[in-house]
Amino acid sequence: MTAPVRSGDPIIVNVPLSERGYDIAIGRGLIASLGERIAKLRPGAAVAIVSDETVAARYLAQAEAALTAAGVRSSPIIVPAGEASKSWRMLESVCEQLLAARIERGDLVVALGGGVVGDLAGFAAACYHRGVGFAQVPTTLLAQVDSAVGGKTGVNHPGGKNLIGAFHQPLLVVCDTGTLVTLPGRELRAGLAEVIKYGLICDPAFFAWLEQHLPQLLARRPEALAHVVRRSCELKAAVVGRDEREQGERALLNLGHTFGHAVEAATAYREWLHGEAVAAGLAMAATMSSECGLLSPRDAERVRRLLELAGLPTHVPSLTAPRLLAHMRADKKVLGGRLRLVLLRRIGNAFLTADYPDDALERTLQAYCG
Amino acid sequence: MTAPVRSGDPIIVNVPLSERGYDIAIGRGLIASLGERIAKLRPGAAVAIVSDETVAARYLAQAEAALTAAGVRSSPIIVPAGEASKSWRMLESVCEQLLAARIERGDLVVALGGGVVGDLAGFAAACYHRGVGFAQVPTTLLAQVDSAVGGKTGVNHPGGKNLIGAFHQPLLVVCDTGTLVTLPGRELRAGLAEVIKYGLICDPAFFAWLEQHLPQLLARRPEALAHVVRRSCELKAAVVGRDEREQGERALLNLGHTFGHAVEAATAYREWLHGEAVAAGLAMAATMSSECGLLSPRDAERVRRLLELAGLPTHVPSLTAPRLLAHMRADKKVLGGRLRLVLLRRIGNAFLTADYPDDALERTLQAYCG
Repeated sequence: MTAPVRSGDPIIVNVPLSERGYDIAIGRGLIASLGERIAKLRPGAAVAIVSDETVAARYLAQAEAALTAAGVRSSPIIVPAGEASKSWRMLESVCEQLLAARIERGDLVVALGGGVVGDLAGFAAACYHRGVGFAQVPTTLLAQVDSAVGGKTGVNHPGGKNLIGAFHQPLLVVCDTGTLVTLPGRELRAGLAEVIKYGLICDPAFFAWLEQHLPQLLARRPEALAHVVRRSCELKAAVVGRDEREQGERALLNLGHTFGHAVEAATAYREWLHGEAVAAGLAMAATMSSECGLLSPRDAERVRRLLELAGLPTHVPSLTAPRLLAHMRADKKVLGGRLRLVLLRRIGNAFLTADYPDDALERTLQAYCG
Repeated sequence: MTAPVRSGDPIIVNVPLSERGYDIAIGRGLIASLGERIAKLRPGAAVAIVSDETVAARYLAQAEAALTAAGVRSSPIIVPAGEASKSWRMLESVCEQLLAARIERGDLVVALGGGVVGDLAGFAAACYHRGVGFAQVPTTLLAQVDSAVGGKTGVNHPGGKNLIGAFHQPLLVVCDTGTLVTLPGRELRAGLAEVIKYGLICDPAFFAWLEQHLPQLLARRPEALAHVVRRSCELKAAVVGRDEREQGERALLNLGHTFGHAVEAATAYREWLHGEAVAAGLAMAATMSSECGLLSPRDAERVRRLLELAGLPTHVPSLTAPRLLAHMRADKKVLGGRLRLVLLRRIGNAFLTADYPDDALERTLQAYCG
């Protein structure tokens, strides 16, 4: 095996949740540090590494070698790649394999992969023996900036995505930004949608930075990638620290998601990557905010332009507006029958509301649908 | 419908868990108060009542009437009676029915029944939408004094009982002691095993009270039953309040359970009720404590005598000692390969230890097995 690339000290971002707080380590080649990090966190613990076939082929041996070198016993649990693995059946299978691997109460489940693996492995860790320790090693941009941080875990149910799950915070997140180099371009761009979202919600300077540095990101310049992972994790960690269970502010992280989930659901989760659907949702949220007289038309245009320059789709020609609206109304965020949406007052200032003119929503959907 | 019997103000026991704290209301006829309690706790919330066929036939109409009278919309979800309902399949089915009943994030799941219904419904409430509100209306002595309090929920897995689950505290527990009047005698006695356990762990005066008042309990005198439910809930609430997730002291509540679970597992969960197996386990723990030179032989004898006077089994003639030991070693409480046991220093003073002579364990099992 070739020596893994490591450059400089990792960046550490803390998620401030008192007794459930944890660190996110960000840097190139950090998979090589996994063993020592886990041995330090939980001396003597064994580990089950949950990964998918694609990621395992690329990084499992490296993760296992790092664990072995630190004296940590590990067993692999490999699931098929793709959203279909976020199922009741696969959850049961992972628990079965945790049992077969003799994982006990003090041991750890490590998720090595993207959002699907993290959500599935995290939920298995939440349920097995009523909760065992859990570490995230996200290998996609979307997982590094979003799904691996904050403790949301779960599986899909025929009646709804992520309908079944738990809040189960990891003990550690290791973002090896080296994994982003091999990520397919479409997945990198999908991750950028969530990155742009953070700027829109609460950091106008970060949004402006993204407008300026998009070429470096698309060229996968390491410093640029490390900066977006760091800043995204900082912003998400702060929100999660103030509202772990989405009683309030955390709902703002759903900017673009009510639109986006409807796009995904209406296309049976087959055509759109999650981040792509979020991109379309962000464009819709910006236009709708403008239609409501909140965001300036010029800023709505900036949002759309940045998404499009990032190579992300904003329009949904294959769906009609009424069809998309019907799917939005089936969303979890309906309260007392009224659909709540996250809208923008300005770039960097989002809020949750059920108080908007219905025709603004209809006009928005008509502008984006086919 | 006849008017439900209510006598006097209910006893309220608080489970002190800061923001997750809740009240246990104890008294005769309290099912009739369910609607007003839930309407006060969560104004406007809808409710799904999970029950089993046996309990539903007896109490569902009463619970529904109480909810309707308080303006609370409710939908019933009925599962087959018996331990087999604590399964992955039934969990999935309950979630499916919660979705069909349009239960949303702010709504509640109410468990109306014994330990199986409470564990299953509680785990469904823990997973559905990553956690919705939950209330327990236990209708067996065992559930009122033990399983409905403390937030342990879960289902069984072929590889182990309660292997999959969550800590999910209820928002409210309503113990209608009137339901104990119709409880089959065998189930009442099984519940008494857990009651006796509390005395053994931490309350010698309560143990002595049980020795004196056993005839009144077996005759189902309301004041005697209300007293054991109250005192058991007080003792469990205090332990759970200090150690919600069983990091330490809460493990003492497993007195007799490592033996008992092995008895249940070795007989495929068919012959022994949980409380009966716990009774045998308590007798074994007392003898073993005596074998280790901790508990006096006289007090070990008091333990066995009280269990036998309560009509509970203490011996396991159908199993051999090596068979039982093998099942004990497969228990969740094995840590680093060594089986930990809760033993007694005195009546009212229990502790967890892995430091005991192996031959004391073997002699104990030989004394109780066939």
